[in-house]
Amino acid sequence: MLRTHNCNSLNIDNVGEIVTLCGWVQKTRDLGGMTFVDLRDRYGITQLAFDIKKNKLSCLEARSLNREFVVQVKGLVIERESKNNKIYTGAIEIEVNELTILNRSKTPPFTIEDNTDGGEELRMKYRYLDIRRKPIKDKLILRAKVSSETRKYLDKQGFIEVETPYLIKSTPEGARDFVVPSRMNEGQFYALPQSPQTFKQLLMVSGMDKYYQIVKCFRDEDLRSDRQPEFTQIDCEMSFVNQEEILNTFEGLTQHLLQTVKGIRPAKFPRLSYQDSIKKYGTDKPDLRFGMEIVEITQLCQKKDFSVFNESELVAGINVQGCANYSRKQLDKLIEFVKTPQIGTSGLIYCKFNEDNTTKSSVDKFFNEQDKKEWKEKANCKNGDLLIIMAGEKNKTQRALGALRLHLANQLNLRNPEKFAPVWIVDFPLLEWDEESKRYHAMHHPFTAPKNEDLVLLDKDPGNVRANAYDLVLNGNEIGGGSIRIHDKELQQLMFKHLGFSEREAKEQFGFLMEAFEYGAPPHGGIAFGFDRLCAIIGGQENIRDFIAFPKNNSGRDTMINSPSLLSQEQLDELSLDLKINK
Amino acid sequence: MLRTHNCNSLNIDNVGEIVTLCGWVQKTRDLGGMTFVDLRDRYGITQLAFDIKKNKLSCLEARSLNREFVVQVKGLVIERESKNNKIYTGAIEIEVNELTILNRSKTPPFTIEDNTDGGEELRMKYRYLDIRRKPIKDKLILRAKVSSETRKYLDKQGFIEVETPYLIKSTPEGARDFVVPSRMNEGQFYALPQSPQTFKQLLMVSGMDKYYQIVKCFRDEDLRSDRQPEFTQIDCEMSFVNQEEILNTFEGLTQHLLQTVKGIRPAKFPRLSYQDSIKKYGTDKPDLRFGMEIVEITQLCQKKDFSVFNESELVAGINVQGCANYSRKQLDKLIEFVKTPQIGTSGLIYCKFNEDNTTKSSVDKFFNEQDKKEWKEKANCKNGDLLIIMAGEKNKTQRALGALRLHLANQLNLRNPEKFAPVWIVDFPLLEWDEESKRYHAMHHPFTAPKNEDLVLLDKDPGNVRANAYDLVLNGNEIGGGSIRIHDKELQQLMFKHLGFSEREAKEQFGFLMEAFEYGAPPHGGIAFGFDRLCAIIGGQENIRDFIAFPKNNSGRDTMINSPSLLSQEQLDELSLDLKINK
Repeated sequence: MLRTHNCNSLNIDNVGEIVTLCGWVQKTRDLGGMTFVDLRDRYGITQLAFDIKKNKLSCLEARSLNREFVVQVKGLVIERESKNNKIYTGAIEIEVNELTILNRSKTPPFTIEDNTDGGEELRMKYRYLDIRRKPIKDKLILRAKVSSETRKYLDKQGFIEVETPYLIKSTPEGARDFVVPSRMNEGQFYALPQSPQTFKQLLMVSGMDKYYQIVKCFRDEDLRSDRQPEFTQIDCEMSFVNQEEILNTFEGLTQHLLQTVKGIRPAKFPRLSYQDSIKKYGTDKPDLRFGMEIVEITQLCQKKDFSVFNESELVAGINVQGCANYSRKQLDKLIEFVKTPQIGTSGLIYCKFNEDNTTKSSVDKFFNEQDKKEWKEKANCKNGDLLIIMAGEKNKTQRALGALRLHLANQLNLRNPEKFAPVWIVDFPLLEWDEESKRYHAMHHPFTAPKNEDLVLLDKDPGNVRANAYDLVLNGNEIGGGSIRIHDKELQQLMFKHLGFSEREAKEQFGFLMEAFEYGAPPHGGIAFGFDRLCAIIGGQENIRDFIAFPKNNSGRDTMINSPSLLSQEQLDELSLDLKINK
Repeated sequence: MLRTHNCNSLNIDNVGEIVTLCGWVQKTRDLGGMTFVDLRDRYGITQLAFDIKKNKLSCLEARSLNREFVVQVKGLVIERESKNNKIYTGAIEIEVNELTILNRSKTPPFTIEDNTDGGEELRMKYRYLDIRRKPIKDKLILRAKVSSETRKYLDKQGFIEVETPYLIKSTPEGARDFVVPSRMNEGQFYALPQSPQTFKQLLMVSGMDKYYQIVKCFRDEDLRSDRQPEFTQIDCEMSFVNQEEILNTFEGLTQHLLQTVKGIRPAKFPRLSYQDSIKKYGTDKPDLRFGMEIVEITQLCQKKDFSVFNESELVAGINVQGCANYSRKQLDKLIEFVKTPQIGTSGLIYCKFNEDNTTKSSVDKFFNEQDKKEWKEKANCKNGDLLIIMAGEKNKTQRALGALRLHLANQLNLRNPEKFAPVWIVDFPLLEWDEESKRYHAMHHPFTAPKNEDLVLLDKDPGNVRANAYDLVLNGNEIGGGSIRIHDKELQQLMFKHLGFSEREAKEQFGFLMEAFEYGAPPHGGIAFGFDRLCAIIGGQENIRDFIAFPKNNSGRDTMINSPSLLSQEQLDELSLDLKINK
């Protein structure tokens, strides 16, 4: 045995024991007669003490230790003189008798500390050193905990984990596939799954009843900072259920995770229709950790000569509490923000309700105190509050106010990472108008079931048909989404017709699933959680990268192993491939 | 709610309850006044009863139900007249009041019964129907259980599950990689991992201390019936441990699995050196569910004029208990077997020790009763036993006897699938002579640590250097294997030298791992279990395919989804690829 304990297992109760520890040298302090070393492993830190009077050789050796050397020490647990009550082992130290250097280390390219001096690029290249840092290590351990608790909950609910294949078939629609040339089937390719959607529906046809999997998925998209070419999903499907049972089951999962990982149990999750969510928050991913809801004041605003309001489909505002004291400069910055290309509006109107009961707005030329009083009441403002008003085309104005709402919440520190505000968004539209192809597309996917009561609208008002589709939103992030699927052949054919698929096209793209559905498909539905994001949100962060052990950069590269890379000519020949590169 | 109970949840205690069930029609029996339907779901079967006198409409509808129709029924739980005590629900039936057909089914291409009339090919094409069959479904559920119990055990032991990447880098050595062209990095490719070996060692460098993952791996090899291009591994690594601790930890895992999944707890696993295993069983994967050990009798056989024995490096036999009564025909079949190309020997010698104390051998011309008595004693034969003797070059003879031993055990039903005989094979040779390249190769991989005490042999007798490498063998199958890794830079360089790597080659192939090792690599080692095989063996089978939800055939094809398949020209263009096919 190389060690008797780990570096976080000894305390005052162990004083007098002879122990052996292993770990990395965090730091050494040479105080003349005494040399102290902080020894670190995954579990924690234990202080080693070397007394030059008692053991000169070890003490001299200890002085020569550099950061990140791997050592083994044997010694006596003694009580510390100056205790550190921030750590479990803070009351003791090891009076070292034997020191063995197990391995040396070059000086690491950045400090292995909670706050490192290493930049993003360097940390990625030496990710194995980055993971030695507590904040990163803890995030990976949290991820493992979320995974483990997810399985515990789903196992208990009777879900069966089934592994679906990774080498599957490329399908033309949707995002780009990563493909894998087949050597044994010349000229043919597998595709890596974008999700196990088809297979989980087949598992319902197979009678598996309740399926789950925590599984890697792949999408060859242009990357953003929060996207990875490979990502992990909690993928679930259930048979003989309606939407209500799915929502309850996965609300239960999310509560279980928040309880077991964070020690909090949120109340029953609110539900918000897609329409209401857009109306109140300008987004279908609302952050409910704070209020600042969008309030429509169109009627109250179109009584005067202000043409901007009069010509607008929607005039609406958000109440920024306690911000009537915003300076001209602060307001200008907000105007700048809403004019940025990603928001793309021409500006905003403000109205301050001052503490002294006076008001001040950027449209005082057009509106009097009575008008502003009406706004104040409608928007539930109090003295000291700032009302921000935007106007224009309805959708665009709502989205702009939604973006501004988040921007302000960030500024005002309203997005507390230790607070969790989950919400179900339900009643998503079934179809989405695509300007480019001038036709409706499935918002979720073509197997999503419409609401029975809306079927009558399919012909004359397709945009208003609602689906049995739902998203779980946590702190402004979509962490899960799913739907009840169509299991009825006639309804499916009707849907394909409305989505503009010919029978031949439908067969080409969804042939074997359609065939499977002819052999007794049960009513079924499911959900998938973005696992990387879920872990990040539970960990109180927005960036997913630190919750992935070995992430790729924005060019899809792993800079640590320097991948992707060139193949040898032999490999290309075996795969019957030629490169077609203009250089 | 579509159902109040599943099809395996009602018994005599529920009589009098109104229930709603959903499921598939297993079969219908029309007895004139009464129609009975067996309703099936994942959980079991419940009998439905339709009384023409009580509910004519439903009864007529029930008569029209075909196999695999999906139905929902509402009715009263009543006591059955003729009970079936083989199933949980056998004492009751549902007197159906309402019958709803949820979905129809075409007649399935094979019967959904324990013993189906469907051939392998048809079953694979309609795998979603095959999984409805209890034997297949149960295997997938067993797999989920093995997975779940593996995680429970490892979580409890402090292992952290870490997901390693799937899009990694192609390495020239070893088996062929599956590769993935990168669109964003023109002309470059990712590779799918053959195992997370490198990453798990990096995780040890990162201080993760104890890592595991149940993970898909990929190998582009020519397939055999028990090989799949994608397969699953339980992958583990530990720091600051020696071989003994690893063996104990994973012996514990295996015992936990056998106990929780099969309800048996085998005693401490025996350990056998590689040398002894070859000597006694002719293989490093011995099946210890039965004896029939190989006994060397060279000395006893080289005293006479029988040149075959006299010229042989090894003469050895196996005692086939109770088979002295084998007929000429049976013995000829054994001779035929050892002459097949995969065994490739020229024949065998037999000696019968009859119940009446007489003997009969195929070499009676050369050996007398006294000789045979000596053999009998050495091989521990009793009257009624059959001694099979083979002779020739040592390695080949051992392997042939090992193969014959298994062949006979199969014939004699000595390989009880409900019996479990695990064994650790230890002290593997570090190096393996390769006839083709005329040099030594690493038997495991170049990072495997040699035994310290054997290091002196590296120069003069490299073939006899033993490694800290081990396999776990269960019922004649290698289910796991691993080693202590080299963490010392100098030893690693020595190893590379002995494996014929130049410094440049070593750097090219293992560069970033070597670099990582310079930043304080801890002593570490690990193991990987072949998860598909482990499940099969625990399930009492040798063939892994039925333990995989959607396996591929011997050409690496998924015949259900018809993959791999051709790509569109647009896809190839985006990936800068041309096909180079002669047709």
